[in-house]
Amino acid sequence: MSRVLVTGFEPFGGETTNPSYDAALLVPGVTAVELPCVFADAPAALREAIERHDPALVLCMGQAGGRAVISVEKVAINLIEARIPDNAGARPSGLPVVEGGPDAYLSTLPVKAMVRAVRAEGIPAAVSYTAGTFVCNQVAYALAHLIATERPGLRGGFVHVPYAPHQVTDTDRPSMETATVARALTALVKASDSLEDDLPEGAVQ
Amino acid sequence: MSRVLVTGFEPFGGETTNPSYDAALLVPGVTAVELPCVFADAPAALREAIERHDPALVLCMGQAGGRAVISVEKVAINLIEARIPDNAGARPSGLPVVEGGPDAYLSTLPVKAMVRAVRAEGIPAAVSYTAGTFVCNQVAYALAHLIATERPGLRGGFVHVPYAPHQVTDTDRPSMETATVARALTALVKASDSLEDDLPEGAVQ
Amino acid sequence: MSRVLVTGFEPFGGETTNPSYDAALLVPGVTAVELPCVFADAPAALREAIERHDPALVLCMGQAGGRAVISVEKVAINLIEARIPDNAGARPSGLPVVEGGPDAYLSTLPVKAMVRAVRAEGIPAAVSYTAGTFVCNQVAYALAHLIATERPGLRGGFVHVPYAPHQVTDTDRPSMETATVARALTALVKASDSLEDDLPEGAVQ
Amino acid sequence: MSRVLVTGFEPFGGETTNPSYDAALLVPGVTAVELPCVFADAPAALREAIERHDPALVLCMGQAGGRAVISVEKVAINLIEARIPDNAGARPSGLPVVEGGPDAYLSTLPVKAMVRAVRAEGIPAAVSYTAGTFVCNQVAYALAHLIATERPGLRGGFVHVPYAPHQVTDTDRPSMETATVARALTALVKASDSLEDDLPEGAVQ
Repeated sequence: MSRVLVTGFEPFGGETTNPSYDAALLVPGVTAVELPCVFADAPAALREAIERHDPALVLCMGQAGGRAVISVEKVAINLIEARIPDNAGARPSGLPVVEGGPDAYLSTLPVKAMVRAVRAEGIPAAVSYTAGTFVCNQVAYALAHLIATERPGLRGGFVHVPYAPHQVTDTDRPSMETATVARALTALVKASDSLEDDLPEGAVQ
Repeated sequence: MSRVLVTGFEPFGGETTNPSYDAALLVPGVTAVELPCVFADAPAALREAIERHDPALVLCMGQAGGRAVISVEKVAINLIEARIPDNAGARPSGLPVVEGGPDAYLSTLPVKAMVRAVRAEGIPAAVSYTAGTFVCNQVAYALAHLIATERPGLRGGFVHVPYAPHQVTDTDRPSMETATVARALTALVKASDSLEDDLPEGAVQ
Repeated sequence: MSRVLVTGFEPFGGETTNPSYDAALLVPGVTAVELPCVFADAPAALREAIERHDPALVLCMGQAGGRAVISVEKVAINLIEARIPDNAGARPSGLPVVEGGPDAYLSTLPVKAMVRAVRAEGIPAAVSYTAGTFVCNQVAYALAHLIATERPGLRGGFVHVPYAPHQVTDTDRPSMETATVARALTALVKASDSLEDDLPEGAVQ
Repeated sequence: MSRVLVTGFEPFGGETTNPSYDAALLVPGVTAVELPCVFADAPAALREAIERHDPALVLCMGQAGGRAVISVEKVAINLIEARIPDNAGARPSGLPVVEGGPDAYLSTLPVKAMVRAVRAEGIPAAVSYTAGTFVCNQVAYALAHLIATERPGLRGGFVHVPYAPHQVTDTDRPSMETATVARALTALVKASDSLEDDLPEGAVQ
């Protein structure tokens, strides 16, 4: 397997952990990097990690509190609308991720094949058509833009993961064990080389 | 008020009514047109309606079963993934709406001001960042593409509405009275001329 | 129709209105009474209303924020567990509604026939098997206990209703128009005399 | 620790596994018994298991598809309303669990302390006030009735668990790893001896 970079985020929104980075640390054979949950810093941190590690594949992950399944993101949009402050206290609204960039990027990874690979491990997964408008979507867009404009040989995409159980013990919100997320991520990395994403049977969900 | 075209869809997915067109018929001072829920026909029907009525504003509406509030769509993507057959029995997957078109369009309407206008009427509303991948998104994309490539003076966007109560009587799914949807639509039409969408208070939701 | 008493609650939990009482006021031919959302006072207020109006039927209603449909309650339990303070600032926990009372009462109203009657009006409805543990359940239990121990000729039950739209304009929570709730309540009153609740086709939900 | 009997159910509703019994098998030091998901047989199978193993504590478990957290049931009602057929093809409706039994039983286990114990393990849990109206509630009621009428020294209750991940891979429904459910169950068994269920801080959820 060629070099793989996996990024997760630092905790945000009052949490003390973030399952996206905790899971990244459990995936064998990849480089795990933690990104700041800060609009002003995250894209540069992503770029620096890519330049340092020169991967063939980058999978960025983020926590999607409230979602119950692994979500492979198909779309990243050129828009920032923060409902809560980021970790630097900023709450930007109505701004593009990249001034003058296209309105959105559709992922060039085989997202449907990737979802099938996770399900084959017995783990719930789905293609998602919105990565939100917070730092996760910013990083998803920044990665797609970097690939489109500077690194055509790089492959990459974004995946959202549920809360870890310990984050939501006194709620009725869905969660997923971090070890399970790591198994899903391992399957996603392998499947990202798949060439059969446009199978005729249609959308995975 | 300048000429306004409002489109709704015919019933689909086993339903016998579609609240999007039922509501369109109740809005005073607009032209209501019903679009076919057929991938092969909907874009042409939209174009024909625009050419015939030459509106200054087009609001296309569709039913988003399961959503509880009026959803003003910010994004339309260049992708079709049908989970169920359309009304012609087609279930296309992995296809673009417009071959060679950009990956997505962000709405140029003041979606946040529009949401505020609906809420001011006492009706729940939110900006939505995914219009799905069915005929609704296809029409949303087709409209944005038409505006971007052929009709720069035209303004337009897409709005999803909940089920009507009578469609879900024996379920626990959310619904909204068609008369309420029509009031929301009236507010949306008025607010679509707003110039103050980038108010500093941030995202509406 | 014999005398009917309908009760709703005063607003609570930071709300300025309560759709249960607002709807009660719209039902023709019934006596509407507002109950305090106060553990220490609600049962006595219910008893006083019954003694004053001497109804043949009592339908008590309450707001069930987050539910999407009319809920006809089948069960009232002898337990108070307040998650938020009532309108007097009390937050009792682990207490019975009636010291020494039975653990619960199953409604003696024809709840399935009542649900069918609401659905026949085109309004979503379901039998519910939990009325919660707040003042609503307290009133539901107190009413059932009063019937069981003192007023065998009285018929009565409890119904939960969704938020009104204006209460949740900036959320994604389900709601129902107050006029629709009033239509449902009118159907419920009529159907509460039904004798065919045990039709062989099984549970309504 | 005194003798503990843990029951789970056989698969039902088209499933090939049931996490309630799969988890029961993973709990150290307890006797695990599988109950049939059949109205006509389940109470007798429960009674037989109790007579054979003579436990001091019985925890019965069932699958609550769609719930995201461990649910410790507080209420069991004397009513059967089957929405789907049981594993013998029966779909009873409007029947009591025990002819002439009380309308319901409130659990005499320290359910709030039990929920706290699961949360202390980093696993989401809540007290639930409805065990439904299917075979799960039937068993919960039958157990409570047996304790109340024949075995005053026995302690017991009912717990609902979420789907296992492999059951819902192609859905967006919440799930919980069976090993996690087993850890929760281990904590529940230990905490069921707690004497401090009525702590003044109020309801757990």
